[in-house]
Amino acid sequence: MNRDKLFEQIKIKHSFLCVGLDADINKIPTHLKELEDPLFEFNKQIVDETNKYAVAYKPNMAFYESYGLSGWNSLKKIVNYIKTTYPNMFLIADAKRGDIGNTAKMYAKAFFEEMDFDAITVAPYMGEDSVTPFLGYKDKWVILLALTSNKGADDFQFIGNPPLYQQVLQKAQSWASPDELMFVVGATRASMLQDVRKTSPDNFLLVPGVGAQGGSLEEVAKFGMNNKCGLLVNSSRGIIYADSTDKFAIVAGEKARELRDEMDVLLSKYM
Amino acid sequence: MNRDKLFEQIKIKHSFLCVGLDADINKIPTHLKELEDPLFEFNKQIVDETNKYAVAYKPNMAFYESYGLSGWNSLKKIVNYIKTTYPNMFLIADAKRGDIGNTAKMYAKAFFEEMDFDAITVAPYMGEDSVTPFLGYKDKWVILLALTSNKGADDFQFIGNPPLYQQVLQKAQSWASPDELMFVVGATRASMLQDVRKTSPDNFLLVPGVGAQGGSLEEVAKFGMNNKCGLLVNSSRGIIYADSTDKFAIVAGEKARELRDEMDVLLSKYM
Repeated sequence: MNRDKLFEQIKIKHSFLCVGLDADINKIPTHLKELEDPLFEFNKQIVDETNKYAVAYKPNMAFYESYGLSGWNSLKKIVNYIKTTYPNMFLIADAKRGDIGNTAKMYAKAFFEEMDFDAITVAPYMGEDSVTPFLGYKDKWVILLALTSNKGADDFQFIGNPPLYQQVLQKAQSWASPDELMFVVGATRASMLQDVRKTSPDNFLLVPGVGAQGGSLEEVAKFGMNNKCGLLVNSSRGIIYADSTDKFAIVAGEKARELRDEMDVLLSKYM
Repeated sequence: MNRDKLFEQIKIKHSFLCVGLDADINKIPTHLKELEDPLFEFNKQIVDETNKYAVAYKPNMAFYESYGLSGWNSLKKIVNYIKTTYPNMFLIADAKRGDIGNTAKMYAKAFFEEMDFDAITVAPYMGEDSVTPFLGYKDKWVILLALTSNKGADDFQFIGNPPLYQQVLQKAQSWASPDELMFVVGATRASMLQDVRKTSPDNFLLVPGVGAQGGSLEEVAKFGMNNKCGLLVNSSRGIIYADSTDKFAIVAGEKARELRDEMDVLLSKYM
């Protein structure tokens, strides 16, 4: 999916919501666990109830890899289901891969060819040759970690002058255009989105940390929105685990709709 | 496998060789491609011919993930084969994972429980909470990227004062002891191993970049060895693709033996 089409979906749905599909078998409703593929069924029902309010889904690879072959199988089914049932959905592999050359090419093949993801999250530590192998796929995206929302972000991301995360933003833009490069910038540091926008005015930002991690959606929009919205705000636990009964999917849909309603207001206010 | 046992294996085998099992279906000998599981068969034959000269194997996850379910299946078979046939082998998942909290715990589960790896490579960008979830497994290891052997290492790893890679070495040692923490330090920067040893005297170092990438084994040993050897030097392509005929495994064995012979001399000289 290219940038114009993503922006079009945001306008159609009045939403820049990304739903994180971090399905943990220990947290999904009990009645699903007796089914043949509980992970798939959980995600399918979540997607069926939330797709009207979301423009993107982001399965985190760890949650599927931890179940080995069966988890990998569930993931493939989920990707296929979303891609065939909701073809306008932007699909992000939250993989945070970071390897070089031939190896990174293999990861690109895994996520862009073997599975039909639109985007993959990538870690910048190893530099240019860990990012470029993911580029050049038509309408596919690299989403590079810049400023993350976790506590440990303070350990290394502010080293140097300008700080490491800014150097990541700046260098990466010499490797790829805003048509194939997004950045991860955490909502728990929303005020820093101003600095991010100074050096990265056009890139879409994938923003985790709203909700369970405490980030403010209003601040994210105020400091981070550009004239093509430029934001995908992710919520995982606040939506998919909002209810643990057989109504979990309906409640997830309600939570997603609430966020969409807030986003609708913010799109009018700040874009 | 704990540190004493790893050192014992190094002494028994006169070797600190790690063989990178980066099996690419496009590079393996033609006659294997007709078999039911070419990736498994290729690796099995490599392992059977090289195990006398190596103390560790390091499959890179990308090469298996890129084949989806069947690749994942091959990987599991390889891990099981090595663990049951050569139980004293140190097995490294070259995964370069870097995610936080619950997600990182899932990766730990995937590699330490779902599969029986001894160690996993981890990326430091997200800081402490992306590393600690992998710790605390008995005799399991985190191998943290510090100074990598690729060209892109120059993009970010030298930012700051002391440079980022040194801050990674130093901070990580406040999170874990040398009994569960190793570092990746590339052989293409062997002279920097002196600086690494100043701040990390006791940690094992996983050293890629010898051979195809041009690093010198002699320099690695000279600058990097400590009194428990403290080195695992990896070679992938130089061993596993040394020959592309039906003698590939025998030639791989010869290449591994040559490296072992060099290592034997270096162990006497520098340890």
